Amino acid sequence: MEQNRNIRLGHGSGGKLTHDLVNDLFLKHFDNEILWRQGDSGIFPQPGRREEFQGGKKQSQSDVNGFQGGSIAFSTDAYVVDPIFFPGGNIGSLAVSGTVNDISVTGARPLYLSAAFILEEGLPLDQLEAIVREMGTVARDAGVQIIAGDTKVVNKGKCDKVFITTAGVGFLEHRFSHIPEGNRIRTGDKIIVNGYVGDHGIAILGERESLSFSSPVLSDAACLNGLIEDVLSGHDVHFMRDATRGGLATVLAELARMAKSKSSRPAFGVHVDESTIPVHEEVRGICEVFGYDPLYMANEGKVVMVVPPDQADGVLSVMQDHPLGNNSAIIGTVTDRQPGKVVLSTEIGGRRFLDMLAGEQLPRIC
Amino acid sequence: MEQNRNIRLGHGSGGKLTHDLVNDLFLKHFDNEILWRQGDSGIFPQPGRREEFQGGKKQSQSDVNGFQGGSIAFSTDAYVVDPIFFPGGNIGSLAVSGTVNDISVTGARPLYLSAAFILEEGLPLDQLEAIVREMGTVARDAGVQIIAGDTKVVNKGKCDKVFITTAGVGFLEHRFSHIPEGNRIRTGDKIIVNGYVGDHGIAILGERESLSFSSPVLSDAACLNGLIEDVLSGHDVHFMRDATRGGLATVLAELARMAKSKSSRPAFGVHVDESTIPVHEEVRGICEVFGYDPLYMANEGKVVMVVPPDQADGVLSVMQDHPLGNNSAIIGTVTDRQPGKVVLSTEIGGRRFLDMLAGEQLPRIC
Repeated sequence: MEQNRNIRLGHGSGGKLTHDLVNDLFLKHFDNEILWRQGDSGIFPQPGRREEFQGGKKQSQSDVNGFQGGSIAFSTDAYVVDPIFFPGGNIGSLAVSGTVNDISVTGARPLYLSAAFILEEGLPLDQLEAIVREMGTVARDAGVQIIAGDTKVVNKGKCDKVFITTAGVGFLEHRFSHIPEGNRIRTGDKIIVNGYVGDHGIAILGERESLSFSSPVLSDAACLNGLIEDVLSGHDVHFMRDATRGGLATVLAELARMAKSKSSRPAFGVHVDESTIPVHEEVRGICEVFGYDPLYMANEGKVVMVVPPDQADGVLSVMQDHPLGNNSAIIGTVTDRQPGKVVLSTEIGGRRFLDMLAGEQLPRIC
Repeated sequence: MEQNRNIRLGHGSGGKLTHDLVNDLFLKHFDNEILWRQGDSGIFPQPGRREEFQGGKKQSQSDVNGFQGGSIAFSTDAYVVDPIFFPGGNIGSLAVSGTVNDISVTGARPLYLSAAFILEEGLPLDQLEAIVREMGTVARDAGVQIIAGDTKVVNKGKCDKVFITTAGVGFLEHRFSHIPEGNRIRTGDKIIVNGYVGDHGIAILGERESLSFSSPVLSDAACLNGLIEDVLSGHDVHFMRDATRGGLATVLAELARMAKSKSSRPAFGVHVDESTIPVHEEVRGICEVFGYDPLYMANEGKVVMVVPPDQADGVLSVMQDHPLGNNSAIIGTVTDRQPGKVVLSTEIGGRRFLDMLAGEQLPRIC
C-alpha cells in the first residue's frame, strides 16, 4: 500500500485490489482467527454453550442434548448499486438476496437479516417504499425475517439516493461445517454453476447506458437458499461460493488459490472448459462491444459448487429441476496440474489463464 | 406520509420523524413479531434447538442440558458522522461502540461484529487505516471480534469520505430476557444515567464550527458492555436503553410511551428532576448560544437504566466505581401520574413536558 495512497474504484471491485485492502488493512487491524478464514460469512460457535461460561469440559456440539450440533454464520454486505432500479430487481432485492446468498453458500440456513439505510435528503418516499416493499417480499419468499434496522439521512449531494447495508445470521449444521472450510476439496471434483453468467452486470450496464437489447437482459438477483437446500438434502458438496463482483472468473481464481493450511501453497489447479459455461448471446454481444469479459461480469444469483465426481450428475439434475437452476452446467474440474492457476480451454481451441479481476470493470454494480 | 413525500433530514434524527418512518414503512413491509418489539436489538431464539428441526415438544431453553438458556440479540447501525475525526473518537470507534451498546442495553453480552465500509474514491488510505486501527482497538478492549466485513467504493462526490455500517450479535441469558421486554418496569422505579449528557453532540458541533472551548469537550463514545456487566452481575435492572440520537429526552419519551401490550395505552409517566441531570458547563453554554437543548443532544456512551427503588443506591455505587460511570446520577422516577408523559421539574422551579425530538437538531451526528 505504499503507492497510490488513496482509495480507488478498484478497491471496491471484489478483485485483486479488494483482496489487497482486506489483507493489508482489515485482517491486520481486526486480526482474529474467524476473519482470517476469509469465507463468505464469519462462522462462530453457537453462543450459550455452558463451557463458555463455566469453564466445563469441552464437548462436541453434536453431543449436546436438545440442540442440533452446529455453528452460526454471520455476514454483511453494503449495496451501492447505480441505478437503484434496474431490470430484474432493485437495490432492496439485491441487498436481501446478496446477504442470504453469502450465508447460504457456507452451507448454513439463513434465518434473520438486519438492514441499515443511508438515505439522501430529497429521496422520494415512494421510491423508498418500492425498495422496502420488495425487500419484504424477497425476504418472506426466502423464509428469512428482517428483525433489526437503522436509518440515517445525509444532506443532498452527500450520498447517491440510497445505500443499504444488510447483515444476516444463519444456522450451520455440524454436518456441513466442511463446506466453508473447503477442506474436502479433492482432485477430480467437478465444478458446477447454476446457469447463465454475467446477466446482472449487463442488466446494470444496459440500464445505465440506455442500451436496447433484442431480448431484454434481466439481473439474475435471487435468493439461492432454496436451491442450495435442495442440493444439500441429498448430495455431498465440498465447497460453494457465490459469484458476485469479479464474476465467475474471480471465484475460480479464489478456489485455485485455496490451500490446505494458511501457510501452505495452493493445493489444486482448476480447469474450465469455456464452451460449457452458460452465457446469454445478448451478454456475449454487449461484452464484445464494450470490451468486457462475461466471465468477470457480476452475478447476483449464481453459485459455484465443487462436488465429488460421483455426485456431479445427481447435483446437476437437482439444480436443473429448480427454477433458479434450469440452465446449470458442469463447467470444470479440480486438477493436480498447475496448482494455484485457473486454466480455461477456449472455444477456439486455445488455453488461457484466468486471474482475479485486476482493476474495476464496472463500478457500483452491487 | 401523505405530505412531504420526500426524505428530509429529520427522518434520520432518531426522533419523531424517524419513528414515523419506522412505523409507516419498515414495520409495515418487514412485518414480523421480533421487529414489532422495536428494541435496541432484534432478539431471536438460539438457533439449532432440535424442535425447530424435528418438530419435537417445545422445552424451556433453560432446561436444555449443555446450553445456558438464552437468546441471541442482533443489531445494526449505519454511521455517517461528519467530521469523521472528532475530539474523543472517529467514525470507526463510534461504529464499534454504538453497536456494542445497542446489544449491551438489551442485557446481552456482545460477542461478534460485522463492519461494511462505503468509501469515497480518493479517500486517503492513511485516514482509512487510522479508522480501522481504532476499530480494532476498541473492539479488542470491549472483548468483541469483528468477523465479517465488506468494502464498496463509490465515485468521488457520490458519498462523503466514509460511511460504516456495523452489525453485531450477542448472547442474552434467559435470566435477563425481561430487560428488552421492559415488562418488569414498575411505578416507583428509579431512573439512572451514567454521567454527563450531550458531550458527543457538542464535540461534533465544536469540531464542525471550529469552536474554541475553555476546556475541550470530548465525545463520550465508549463501549458500555463492561459497565453494564458490572451492574447486572449483582443487581436487578428492569430496563435499559442507550441515549444516542435524540438525546436523553427522546429515550425518556420512549420509556413513557411503553405500554404493557401492543394494543394498550402507556402504563407509566416519567418524572425527571433537571437539577440532577449531569451536564457539563461548556455543553450548557454552547447549547445556549446555538439555541439547543442538552437533553436532546446526542450521546454515544450513555445508558439510561430503570431499576427497582431498593436497588438504586447499589446500582449507582457500582456505576460510579466504573471509569465510564464516575458521574452517574439518579435523575428520575417512574410514576403513575400522567401516563405517556415525561415531566421535567426545571431548575427554576417550573415544569415542562419532554417529548421526542420533533425535527433535526444536528444532522450526521453519528
